[in-house]
Amino acid sequence: MSERPADATLGATSERATLAQIFPRLPQSSATIVGPGDDAAVLAAPDARYVVTTDMMVHGPDFRWAWSSPYDLGWKAAATNLSDVAAMGAVPTALVVAIAAPSSTPVGHLLALADGLRDACSRLAPGCGVVGGDLSVSDTFTIAVTAFGDLQGRDPVLRSGARVGDIVAVSGPLGLAATGLRQLFESAVDAEGEPDASLFAGVLGAHPHTVTAQLRPHPPIADGPLAAQAGATAMLDLSDGLALDARRVAEASGVAIDLDASRLGASGLGVDTRTALTGGEDHSLFATFGAQASLPGGFRAIGRVVDGAGLLVDGRPFDERGGWDPYLEWNGQAG
Amino acid sequence: MSERPADATLGATSERATLAQIFPRLPQSSATIVGPGDDAAVLAAPDARYVVTTDMMVHGPDFRWAWSSPYDLGWKAAATNLSDVAAMGAVPTALVVAIAAPSSTPVGHLLALADGLRDACSRLAPGCGVVGGDLSVSDTFTIAVTAFGDLQGRDPVLRSGARVGDIVAVSGPLGLAATGLRQLFESAVDAEGEPDASLFAGVLGAHPHTVTAQLRPHPPIADGPLAAQAGATAMLDLSDGLALDARRVAEASGVAIDLDASRLGASGLGVDTRTALTGGEDHSLFATFGAQASLPGGFRAIGRVVDGAGLLVDGRPFDERGGWDPYLEWNGQAG
Repeated sequence: MSERPADATLGATSERATLAQIFPRLPQSSATIVGPGDDAAVLAAPDARYVVTTDMMVHGPDFRWAWSSPYDLGWKAAATNLSDVAAMGAVPTALVVAIAAPSSTPVGHLLALADGLRDACSRLAPGCGVVGGDLSVSDTFTIAVTAFGDLQGRDPVLRSGARVGDIVAVSGPLGLAATGLRQLFESAVDAEGEPDASLFAGVLGAHPHTVTAQLRPHPPIADGPLAAQAGATAMLDLSDGLALDARRVAEASGVAIDLDASRLGASGLGVDTRTALTGGEDHSLFATFGAQASLPGGFRAIGRVVDGAGLLVDGRPFDERGGWDPYLEWNGQAG
Repeated sequence: MSERPADATLGATSERATLAQIFPRLPQSSATIVGPGDDAAVLAAPDARYVVTTDMMVHGPDFRWAWSSPYDLGWKAAATNLSDVAAMGAVPTALVVAIAAPSSTPVGHLLALADGLRDACSRLAPGCGVVGGDLSVSDTFTIAVTAFGDLQGRDPVLRSGARVGDIVAVSGPLGLAATGLRQLFESAVDAEGEPDASLFAGVLGAHPHTVTAQLRPHPPIADGPLAAQAGATAMLDLSDGLALDARRVAEASGVAIDLDASRLGASGLGVDTRTALTGGEDHSLFATFGAQASLPGGFRAIGRVVDGAGLLVDGRPFDERGGWDPYLEWNGQAG
């Protein structure tokens, strides 16, 4: 099969020819027994268990080409799924990736997306690779990633294990990704509020940390297994915002969580305390540890587990919903 | 969280409320260690390996609401993935399902889709269940299923193991699904060639076997592990048509495959030999067995593995491409 130029479109290239160009760019998984090319892959599960999570990103509600490059999308699709694996205390081992793209999509976009998948794996979770995929045509660009992990003989760290007296800790930023998204919607949109690629570079230049946190997040994947080794009693990936996700841990564990407002926010980066509490998509790791634990990796204490129910901030109930629900909050016109 | 009526739309219902209605309808997996509700699921891999495959179905190229009910879509999305697992010789254990749907979609459609997933698992692969999912909003209805399987200590059956002298066999229909699709495009479309729901019932009534094979296939899942136990040397899920898929086995194995035309086709069901060779989406199992093997389950002999390369029919090269490539063949106007 001859290689097509990267500016050929998917519509002018067979699925097989496109996949033949993509697969060599993808990282190998160290867990591979049978790799891509058969009906299915076969992966190793050394302790006879495996961790599985899936997440789909859709053009419009989840990303916009005016702001995300294909490389960014590949990176983020990998990173967010790796984070869910890490939040169980597992080491990510492999991904499968299904993509549906308009037939007008240049093959080069898929190659750049593959490079983003590759670099996210090699930077965030070395040894994790892509073991299978599927390519379809759709009017709406869509990527679905399923990620796998190895618990290395440890128990999974669930949401339900927080105990009164535990330290509440987080590894990674709070509110950074939401601040970046707010800045994009404030300054990288046209007069109708539509994302505008020509205004993007200026916003990225003015706010590199926050905009990068939104478009190309660096979740602390290695801290997931480290937390499990250190005896974390509960753990969660912060995808929907600290307030909403902390409440989930509190509810699942039958406790209350009291956060220290002075330890939230990052005024130097323009993140206020409220955004640190309610902003989604950080993909930081939230965990609870026994009162005597020394916090591993990048974890820092932000509160305590206390008697009661729900979320407190400085001892007072915090009832703002926070977080992100694509159905209730997405404005299709702004996509 | 209060239950919403099934005729409420996704746009009027939170993702969490929708998932809370869907998950109780889904089948449990007997491999579940940690089920839905945490960052990720944890599954058992008793022989320290697991089989993984993923496939995405997109409204337009892969299904049309004028012809497929939500139940049919759930059934087919499960069945086609179960078939890829079975084609490795594995027993399907679990699925994860990511869905992106327009916000105008009635919640009841997702509940019916869940019922289709459930019934396909319980009928085709008892013990297989849904262990995780994701729900997004999209202008284009899209479902991505990732399926898992257990090899039960056996070697996986690859495409590459066919040997000269082997029997070529198939379990399941040939060309039935493609015949059904042709009948739908002939008689269940309006004057502009668009799929027409009002004409569908008549076509289903006239051609129940072929139309059902297209919309709600019953791949012989149990025959995958049976073939592996019987010593199948190569195996493949027939998704792209017998000719194309047989050529893949021949190429991967370094042999030629010679099919007996008299054993193809099913004139009673309106399937001619050419359609049996080139029609896609049957999801029957194609396998090769040693010359002395007694064929297991529903397998029947359709040819021999011979010296050479490529595909022969009655000893003569068969070079028609056959099969289905969504990029090259999809006519968006007919979706």
